[in-house]
Amino acid sequence: MIKVGIVGGTGYTGVELLRILSTHPEVELTVITSRKEDGLKVADMYPSLRGKVALAFSAPEKAALDKCDVVFFATPHGVAMAQAPALLAAGVKLIDLAADFRLKDVKTFEKWYGLPHSCPEILQEAVYGLPEINRAAIRGARVIGNPGCYPTTMQLGFYPLLKAGVVDAGHLIADCKSGVSGAGRKGEISLLFSEAADNFKAYGVSGHRHTPETLEQLQYQTTQKVGLLFTPHLVPMIRGMHATLYARLTTDISNEALQQLFVDTYRDEAFVDVMPFASHPETRSTRASNMLRLALHRPEVDGVPGDMLIVLVVQDNLVKGSSGQAVQCMNLMFGLPETTGLGHVPVMP
Amino acid sequence: MIKVGIVGGTGYTGVELLRILSTHPEVELTVITSRKEDGLKVADMYPSLRGKVALAFSAPEKAALDKCDVVFFATPHGVAMAQAPALLAAGVKLIDLAADFRLKDVKTFEKWYGLPHSCPEILQEAVYGLPEINRAAIRGARVIGNPGCYPTTMQLGFYPLLKAGVVDAGHLIADCKSGVSGAGRKGEISLLFSEAADNFKAYGVSGHRHTPETLEQLQYQTTQKVGLLFTPHLVPMIRGMHATLYARLTTDISNEALQQLFVDTYRDEAFVDVMPFASHPETRSTRASNMLRLALHRPEVDGVPGDMLIVLVVQDNLVKGSSGQAVQCMNLMFGLPETTGLGHVPVMP
Amino acid sequence: MIKVGIVGGTGYTGVELLRILSTHPEVELTVITSRKEDGLKVADMYPSLRGKVALAFSAPEKAALDKCDVVFFATPHGVAMAQAPALLAAGVKLIDLAADFRLKDVKTFEKWYGLPHSCPEILQEAVYGLPEINRAAIRGARVIGNPGCYPTTMQLGFYPLLKAGVVDAGHLIADCKSGVSGAGRKGEISLLFSEAADNFKAYGVSGHRHTPETLEQLQYQTTQKVGLLFTPHLVPMIRGMHATLYARLTTDISNEALQQLFVDTYRDEAFVDVMPFASHPETRSTRASNMLRLALHRPEVDGVPGDMLIVLVVQDNLVKGSSGQAVQCMNLMFGLPETTGLGHVPVMP
Amino acid sequence: MIKVGIVGGTGYTGVELLRILSTHPEVELTVITSRKEDGLKVADMYPSLRGKVALAFSAPEKAALDKCDVVFFATPHGVAMAQAPALLAAGVKLIDLAADFRLKDVKTFEKWYGLPHSCPEILQEAVYGLPEINRAAIRGARVIGNPGCYPTTMQLGFYPLLKAGVVDAGHLIADCKSGVSGAGRKGEISLLFSEAADNFKAYGVSGHRHTPETLEQLQYQTTQKVGLLFTPHLVPMIRGMHATLYARLTTDISNEALQQLFVDTYRDEAFVDVMPFASHPETRSTRASNMLRLALHRPEVDGVPGDMLIVLVVQDNLVKGSSGQAVQCMNLMFGLPETTGLGHVPVMP
Repeated sequence: MIKVGIVGGTGYTGVELLRILSTHPEVELTVITSRKEDGLKVADMYPSLRGKVALAFSAPEKAALDKCDVVFFATPHGVAMAQAPALLAAGVKLIDLAADFRLKDVKTFEKWYGLPHSCPEILQEAVYGLPEINRAAIRGARVIGNPGCYPTTMQLGFYPLLKAGVVDAGHLIADCKSGVSGAGRKGEISLLFSEAADNFKAYGVSGHRHTPETLEQLQYQTTQKVGLLFTPHLVPMIRGMHATLYARLTTDISNEALQQLFVDTYRDEAFVDVMPFASHPETRSTRASNMLRLALHRPEVDGVPGDMLIVLVVQDNLVKGSSGQAVQCMNLMFGLPETTGLGHVPVMP
Repeated sequence: MIKVGIVGGTGYTGVELLRILSTHPEVELTVITSRKEDGLKVADMYPSLRGKVALAFSAPEKAALDKCDVVFFATPHGVAMAQAPALLAAGVKLIDLAADFRLKDVKTFEKWYGLPHSCPEILQEAVYGLPEINRAAIRGARVIGNPGCYPTTMQLGFYPLLKAGVVDAGHLIADCKSGVSGAGRKGEISLLFSEAADNFKAYGVSGHRHTPETLEQLQYQTTQKVGLLFTPHLVPMIRGMHATLYARLTTDISNEALQQLFVDTYRDEAFVDVMPFASHPETRSTRASNMLRLALHRPEVDGVPGDMLIVLVVQDNLVKGSSGQAVQCMNLMFGLPETTGLGHVPVMP
Repeated sequence: MIKVGIVGGTGYTGVELLRILSTHPEVELTVITSRKEDGLKVADMYPSLRGKVALAFSAPEKAALDKCDVVFFATPHGVAMAQAPALLAAGVKLIDLAADFRLKDVKTFEKWYGLPHSCPEILQEAVYGLPEINRAAIRGARVIGNPGCYPTTMQLGFYPLLKAGVVDAGHLIADCKSGVSGAGRKGEISLLFSEAADNFKAYGVSGHRHTPETLEQLQYQTTQKVGLLFTPHLVPMIRGMHATLYARLTTDISNEALQQLFVDTYRDEAFVDVMPFASHPETRSTRASNMLRLALHRPEVDGVPGDMLIVLVVQDNLVKGSSGQAVQCMNLMFGLPETTGLGHVPVMP
Repeated sequence: MIKVGIVGGTGYTGVELLRILSTHPEVELTVITSRKEDGLKVADMYPSLRGKVALAFSAPEKAALDKCDVVFFATPHGVAMAQAPALLAAGVKLIDLAADFRLKDVKTFEKWYGLPHSCPEILQEAVYGLPEINRAAIRGARVIGNPGCYPTTMQLGFYPLLKAGVVDAGHLIADCKSGVSGAGRKGEISLLFSEAADNFKAYGVSGHRHTPETLEQLQYQTTQKVGLLFTPHLVPMIRGMHATLYARLTTDISNEALQQLFVDTYRDEAFVDVMPFASHPETRSTRASNMLRLALHRPEVDGVPGDMLIVLVVQDNLVKGSSGQAVQCMNLMFGLPETTGLGHVPVMP
């Protein structure tokens, strides 16, 4: 059994980790920290876990995180890097669901997150936890920077196209839409039901932290200079993320060949579902599961296939977009079958 | 492995059966019927099941239901009773999620459902599938009438009180609220998003089919004549059911004793969670799981405990209120641990 | 033109006052206060008011409230009573949307609101602002305690029955449901979209402030001792309130006579709509308007009309349940036709 | 008073016309037709109109439409053109909210709508009812083709840019999102609450009828060949539409100059609100009103303004996107101030 610790389990990615890990056959939930909720039983805060999780929150100083095999950080940015050196020294592996270990470029990190990076040397060994692209490195990693939710959809949607060199990498557009849980569990006015329900809006259009993360990763896939316009929107739903990706084709390629390119790329992936050409994946088809689904569209112009390709990508932002992907990485790091404990069938309706 | 057939798998209780049964370790999904969708792969109608369910719909006449060990009917009222004699003759067990085998009184059935009962002798042997009350009978049953969603909440809420004889059974009130999926998957104007969202209403207040079903069952628990006022309401949520039950106490009993009564009644139940006195259970704490949670309240009048007891009950109407409960019955009928395949942790948020 | 001031215009009742008053033909919006938002244009906080409201927030000490004809307090409990003496001395009328002037009994106020009442003498002259019951007194009032949202539905639903003496006043039950905006615009976790959406729950079941307010007012209508069980619930919708009221009939009275009782009581009321017997009013049929609709039900028992009467009541909690009712009072206080500026047609869908 | 008839008042654009026209000071609602609902009072179908609209539905053959001054068609495509010749002959003006008179090119109409156009000569005189662009022609029109909801947002967003010639007209992208009411009031499974809630999806990505309509109109504004990629999505909200428009700048122009271009274009428009540069308009800021709001964004690339301009546009799809715009046209056709009866303040929250 893998002894698992969770730092910061009171937010949505934390409770989602608990949901997943509490039925994971190879995991023993050992400790969960929260300074504010020290002593409170997890199930008293989240009645959904009554009878499923017996653990109580511990203040960080009481928590024996160094006795764990792996610690997940479901915390604000900056927390994981503060604790990483000591944990690694104690032989504990670490998976950060925040941004501390996502960006290899320290300057970019410091610009977008507004705090200095306290352990750049650990950052250099950290592995970006997107299994479909970085599987081998994840297997050997001690530290994982778990991808952001938006970046996961953008990378898995653009990846086969950049790899194959069939699109103009310099002018990618990603028009993305997220459910409200993506903004976290915090008492902000704009996240209130009465503000977010029956409403739709864009946010961060002039600049968003997930742009540099995605750019850095996409750049590994191509020698062209990558350019990306990323526009996030807030959808009045709890979970779910939809990316509408636009890329201009630069080669003469048939729809069949494009579809085959995606099918071949993801043939062996348990958590990426390439739907039939011209399908319209719905976010709910992935709800509460680790699946990501995508489909290709190529609208005609004057009766012939145009030069613009559209990739539609959906996932549950809290699972494949966060906690599920983190567990997928954990499985790899500990030599388990990648799908262990992640067999949830999406909840529909 | 239990060979399972599903008749009418295109509605919400059908797809929920598929979600649950597709990961049930002792079940082999063998056949699923739909006249209209003959030949269509289930996962083409419900992309959430892609990679999880390989089965295609068969027209009823092609479907070898008589080769199954058990057949679930997720159909409109009247379908199960038409097929029951032949299936039973072939040695197949039968669980009806509709109303054909719920009401022992044929006249009451015919009055409320507007169709004659075609096999009253089978009705007499049928068992009402509420395991917490009828467990022994379910174990030995060939035919199960699976309870309605509202009746499940009302019965499990009132049961300990009637059994103990501490309330006025003649004047029970059940003010109940259901998510929209309870109305089924059919193209009715009143169920449209634009009609049901951001709206709340009562319906069927002057009379609803779940009243006679509940009355008949509650009457088994007491020698008093049971009287029940049942008021259903529609809530703008997909899944979830909340019952607010009112009963007048007729004995001098402390809050502690009332709480203990419920704790004792449900101590060994895996799917009934008695929360602390004066808790407010939320429907989402049971979402996509087979749990039912309840809590007691007793408002004070002039500074002392009043004579009215309130029981709050929540469940997922599609799981404990329907398909999950049906699987719970199946487990009992086939000698499996009652919780087999029903260990889903509620999805929160 | 009536010069109007608003204290505390940043919450939902405040912005709703602005929506209504900005098109009121006899009102000149003169001042709106907010310490925190001093100098900010109202329309910068609420873009829905761009082009409709030119006013900016002023810090209280800069605001010339004493130059107004009437001041609305859309503030937390306790603010209005602190400013009432000075405003009244300056000849300004005052309408409090909070609870400072609702409860005549100072002890009850202090028990439920946890703060001493600073001007009990003003409280004694204050008028409870429910026009359908207190119209004459409102016309002559200097200070209005605007009713709570729940109490409005409960009182208008029970009033004809108590007045006519046809029900058991000692055992009234009100099972009420409110949209989330009723909880106000504040950064509380439980009000987040991801917490409140796709969910239903009761709250405050063991005791809620609106019980004593409603009891006090209902008691004026009958010589029987009034008893009331009030159970509030939270509905995942923005606006709307639904009360399901239960009363036991104590006289032999026909359904027709009951219906006529309500029709007669509210015949001349512009904002109370008595729907046909056995209707099911929907909250959305009142959305964004000052209408309250109600309908009667009397379920049969053993084929004859039972002794329990159900009254279904709906309103928009922010309009008839709060800001609209306050404007209705203002119209009366200033000798205007009661419907002035309140002719909004409900928004459907 | 303008005598107004409505054909097909049972859908959402019909009931929205009724909401708006019932308080329009210069309109007398004279007749409303529905074959199916002949004799039913409008307010019996839509209780929101109780006390506001006294009219009953009439079967078409009984309805004296030829006595009206203007008739609105809130019907499926094809109905208005069948009745247009007779109404025009009787001197009645006509505003079609469907597509019969939107597309000047008959072949395009017939291709996308799958039915022959029965009165191409009337089509030629018909005026496209977008007042901000076609005001003069609308004033003199007998027949209006009221714009589609999506096309209104796309045109008002791209118009200043095409007119000024500052973008590449051949590669416009419109990623659009609509509330569910845009799909109409019909019993389709995909529009059910349980299907559309807590879900997000694209639809019609490979081709949608609003593309040719928008292309035809945009082409009038520029000599470049217009190319448009239009991607519609369904949002779980009742009302509201959000367009995220992407255009590549082809000239060296500052952000200030771009903002000024929009401000100048719409300076005198009552229903177009140009928000400050880099704002994020929310759909709810226009809810139930005839306002359309827009804002510009220009993300930086490597620290300098990039060559991609983003225009965010919001409106209520049933008002500015349909019925409100139709009334705006009517006002122009009858010489009234354009804003008559359209002064609704958006409903927030």
